[in-house]
Amino acid sequence: MPEIRAIPVEGIGEVRPGDDVVVLILAALAGRRRALAEGDLLIITHKIISKAEGQIVPLASVKPSRKAVAWARKYKLDPRLTQLAWDQGQIVRQHHGVTITETAHGFVCANSGVDASNVDGGASVVLLPRDPDKSAQKIQRDLKKKLGFAVPVIITDSFGRAWREGLTEVAIGVAGMRAFRDSRGERDPYGYKLKVTLEAIADELAGMAGLACGKLTRIPACIIRGYPFRAGRGRARELIRDRERDMFR
Amino acid sequence: MPEIRAIPVEGIGEVRPGDDVVVLILAALAGRRRALAEGDLLIITHKIISKAEGQIVPLASVKPSRKAVAWARKYKLDPRLTQLAWDQGQIVRQHHGVTITETAHGFVCANSGVDASNVDGGASVVLLPRDPDKSAQKIQRDLKKKLGFAVPVIITDSFGRAWREGLTEVAIGVAGMRAFRDSRGERDPYGYKLKVTLEAIADELAGMAGLACGKLTRIPACIIRGYPFRAGRGRARELIRDRERDMFR
Repeated sequence: MPEIRAIPVEGIGEVRPGDDVVVLILAALAGRRRALAEGDLLIITHKIISKAEGQIVPLASVKPSRKAVAWARKYKLDPRLTQLAWDQGQIVRQHHGVTITETAHGFVCANSGVDASNVDGGASVVLLPRDPDKSAQKIQRDLKKKLGFAVPVIITDSFGRAWREGLTEVAIGVAGMRAFRDSRGERDPYGYKLKVTLEAIADELAGMAGLACGKLTRIPACIIRGYPFRAGRGRARELIRDRERDMFR
Repeated sequence: MPEIRAIPVEGIGEVRPGDDVVVLILAALAGRRRALAEGDLLIITHKIISKAEGQIVPLASVKPSRKAVAWARKYKLDPRLTQLAWDQGQIVRQHHGVTITETAHGFVCANSGVDASNVDGGASVVLLPRDPDKSAQKIQRDLKKKLGFAVPVIITDSFGRAWREGLTEVAIGVAGMRAFRDSRGERDPYGYKLKVTLEAIADELAGMAGLACGKLTRIPACIIRGYPFRAGRGRARELIRDRERDMFR
């Protein structure tokens, strides 16, 4: 087994609507020893993708409903943020000031993934990309054109979990690789056939990148080197459990 | 930011009840360039811990109830495995042949974490360690004695998620480090105060190790190098959401 490395991409700087994320990332890597190589993956936190795509909402433009104002007041929240979270998804659960929604993409997460940190000193918030799989595909295509070889791309966000505390980074967009490692039917070293081993590789790679990036540093992207991914047309959409298989709603 | 590396520990071999996992791991690393160093973490899949602790059940010893036989027949499962899964936890949901339980430890997972692969060609199954936090603490203490410096230890298992397909490795035992990175109240590079950034670091480290270990290889442990962990008395128990905060049962 090879060693796997997470290499932070430093020096990307502030991203604004209309910016080309691929140009910014390649510029940050230019001339560095740690530049992208064949066999690498590129993991990008969604926030810079959302910003580049203009998925930014000034809070002053949001008119909260009376219901949102009442709920927000009860839990000392910003009613405009509450309203946005409600507008961006269908409510799955609401309890003690926490709103879990299903977004238009199908993600089940807190506050529809609306992100209040880091933007205009709090005057604006960042929404999820409209179609993160499509965003990942575009970045992957553009990277291939510029590099001459294919680099799979994963776009991430921090989600909570039903029964575990804390957030972990997960894949919300995938391109150029399979999202799962499917070992069902393969045999382990003892000859025993594996039955239910469908590993959410894209999520584990997202989590690994989360360790290398860090919320308090300005490092929104990370190279993963040494992971033997399987090239393919994987999508983060496949990571979302279908409603028919959902036991918890 | 430093680079973070996952280094598989090869050559551990078969583990049997009564074996000393620390001795086996240090023997596998002896004389290697990649041996444990200060600042490293050690991530171990629970199966070798369970085996060393004798948490093995021969399926022939399990007498399934009539209810377990009926359920198992319906979904083409082994009724003895069904019975064991029921015995090892409280049922949270049961649907289409999938049993989600809460184990005595408090973990919410499929089949109480009973693991049917890899043991005696399928004649026996492996249970979770009785107290994985305690197992991690013992390993961490023993490692410190033998190495002369402290290495945090994480014990992992593959769990499913409520709304996402596929399994990811998570931490079921932690020792020598904080399980979370708590950035609440800290400021990002723009001076904006972070509100809800409690990252489940131990789970992300588990997932990273999952990428380096792999189910089909005989590599049950992995060194993580370069991750700036915070030493402390973290426990995997803290990663379990309390019933009062659980919105999905």
